[in-house]
Amino acid sequence: MSEIVSDEVLREKSIASRKARDRVAIIGSGNWASALSIIIGNNAKKYDCFENEIKMWVYEEMIECKISCVHPNGDFLYSTYLHGFKLPENIIACPDLVRCVEDADCLVFCIPHQFLPGVLNQIKHHVRPNTYAISCIKGVDHDENGRLRLITGMIYDELNIDCSIICGANVANQIAAGEFAEATLGYRVRDHAEKLQVLFNTPNFCVQLVNDPVGVEFCGSLKNVIALGAGFVDALGYGSNTKAALIRIGLQEMKKFAKMFYKGVQDNTFFQSAGVADLITTCWGGRNVRCAEAFARTGKSWEQLEAEMLNGQKLQGTTTCKEVYDMLINTQMDQEFPLMVTIYNIAYRGYDPKLILEGCRLHNGVPMTPYSMLTQE
Amino acid sequence: MSEIVSDEVLREKSIASRKARDRVAIIGSGNWASALSIIIGNNAKKYDCFENEIKMWVYEEMIECKISCVHPNGDFLYSTYLHGFKLPENIIACPDLVRCVEDADCLVFCIPHQFLPGVLNQIKHHVRPNTYAISCIKGVDHDENGRLRLITGMIYDELNIDCSIICGANVANQIAAGEFAEATLGYRVRDHAEKLQVLFNTPNFCVQLVNDPVGVEFCGSLKNVIALGAGFVDALGYGSNTKAALIRIGLQEMKKFAKMFYKGVQDNTFFQSAGVADLITTCWGGRNVRCAEAFARTGKSWEQLEAEMLNGQKLQGTTTCKEVYDMLINTQMDQEFPLMVTIYNIAYRGYDPKLILEGCRLHNGVPMTPYSMLTQE
Repeated sequence: MSEIVSDEVLREKSIASRKARDRVAIIGSGNWASALSIIIGNNAKKYDCFENEIKMWVYEEMIECKISCVHPNGDFLYSTYLHGFKLPENIIACPDLVRCVEDADCLVFCIPHQFLPGVLNQIKHHVRPNTYAISCIKGVDHDENGRLRLITGMIYDELNIDCSIICGANVANQIAAGEFAEATLGYRVRDHAEKLQVLFNTPNFCVQLVNDPVGVEFCGSLKNVIALGAGFVDALGYGSNTKAALIRIGLQEMKKFAKMFYKGVQDNTFFQSAGVADLITTCWGGRNVRCAEAFARTGKSWEQLEAEMLNGQKLQGTTTCKEVYDMLINTQMDQEFPLMVTIYNIAYRGYDPKLILEGCRLHNGVPMTPYSMLTQE
Repeated sequence: MSEIVSDEVLREKSIASRKARDRVAIIGSGNWASALSIIIGNNAKKYDCFENEIKMWVYEEMIECKISCVHPNGDFLYSTYLHGFKLPENIIACPDLVRCVEDADCLVFCIPHQFLPGVLNQIKHHVRPNTYAISCIKGVDHDENGRLRLITGMIYDELNIDCSIICGANVANQIAAGEFAEATLGYRVRDHAEKLQVLFNTPNFCVQLVNDPVGVEFCGSLKNVIALGAGFVDALGYGSNTKAALIRIGLQEMKKFAKMFYKGVQDNTFFQSAGVADLITTCWGGRNVRCAEAFARTGKSWEQLEAEMLNGQKLQGTTTCKEVYDMLINTQMDQEFPLMVTIYNIAYRGYDPKLILEGCRLHNGVPMTPYSMLTQE
């Protein structure tokens, strides 16, 4: 016991006496990266464990017109992503990806997941050995065989550094406006998580730590599949009972899926913001639910709906849905996940959207007890 | 092992060879009782373990005008509760409460909770010893000292019979219309639960069994308190992040409250329809959320809002909120439940509805790590 205490005291002393402050670099400059940079910039000014100045990687051609952070020449610029929000003055735009990361201690990844492999490839020989990372990327990737790949795993594999993840019921513009929200930070290394919590937490953005990065990441990706199902329910005009049942069953299948394919995923993670709260928000108003509603109502293709409704953005639920299905088929586990399989069948195999209820029913199974077998036929 | 198998075989044989069918009586005839009687009536016709004919206790003065079940004189009558739905012909209206219960094996309680003590008092000497019960009553009661009393506990205490409970995301009219929904049946005695599942389960009303009646009953009552908070958030115009956070924090406090005051309550119950699904439905459109929104927006009293908005019905969230608060104060546990306490303070002590966010923040607490203490002041 005394040993534990003295270890802790030593650690506190070593943290308190440290001279070095961690340098943070933000990789990305879209609307989510911009919203988070407001928080990160202000926290870096306030807390002693981070360098004040934070580099933000911005595509060269975007610096002039889109980002309201400090250009190397000292001008402030305004963002087309977050209308009306100016980024803190300690966020410095950096068009050179390698320069952005080479002296960083902490990398904050916040780019569309399809750009990640290229970015990792460019920086992999330029990251310092003790650097730690956090993924703010929504969505999952997949390898050439269509198998799901976790973003935190890709960052770890390519850069050989610890990577946490942050995820939750977080609509970017509401966060930038300072509306109250929560987020879940999934970590492997506690010391990194405690620093990252300091970097992200504010009175209006409450960050909770869970030692389950895989659970958090699965929540963030699988919710989009369930949102497709919620869109089908909306299109069919069913009431709140049915939609609540679909969300609940979806949460159960998400939990089961994550626990089946990865060890150590915890039930409690699904009670966090990244779990139940993000699923609720996503099923009530995200792009996946809106497009799925239109898909079931109009019969148009996903490509057409993306083009008409998303202004250049892509659906994540449809891609993840395919990957989940392939994984279930390859492992012969499809019978165990009737809701997710039904969503795939409606989304990609021309099944009637009404069958979404069948997916819910099958999840429940037929109660088989001595009593239920005694029918009057 | 062989002993267990043979026990099970014996049980199945004894169930299969039984001659007696259980008689069901429904105590109540409001809209929820009427919706459930459609399910119960049809299942009693189909399954061999129940008597076909089911008595439904109906106030004498209501028989003529309100209920579409069979009057003792053989006429069908229509319901003012469930417009357009006729109850199955095997549901027999019975104006005499004692006659309704005295030959019953299974009592289905479905009345407003404030009528329960009177009903129990009237029937307590007329219930057969091996009768079992189920509560479909929403809400909790309280004793003369304001302490919460569970409905299943009251039934058990007064009648000395086992009592299960059914609860979930179940809007009566949607259930009567046959829309897909789920429900959670919390039980103590497995054999009763298996019979009751047969009585209630249909392809569109999926009943799951959990061996945690107290957890189920707390879900059903505490959700109404959280819905008041959701109404305050709505009135303040906050977005989906904030509402999802409130719902999530509410679910966590519900779980913590139930586990703190009763042993054996299970985490998994809060993933069931009675937990997360019912909470979502209630926070998105129930009477508690609507009245709380009006309360925060207009400053009118609860009494006035009930009179104006509820057409004679009462709010359950406000009563439960008081009882929860009293229980927390009496046990000095109020610090542990900042959201529920804040909801009480807004509802009854004139606090500004904006403080609802403070309740959410306090739930999260301030992250205290060596890093967060190193500020630059």
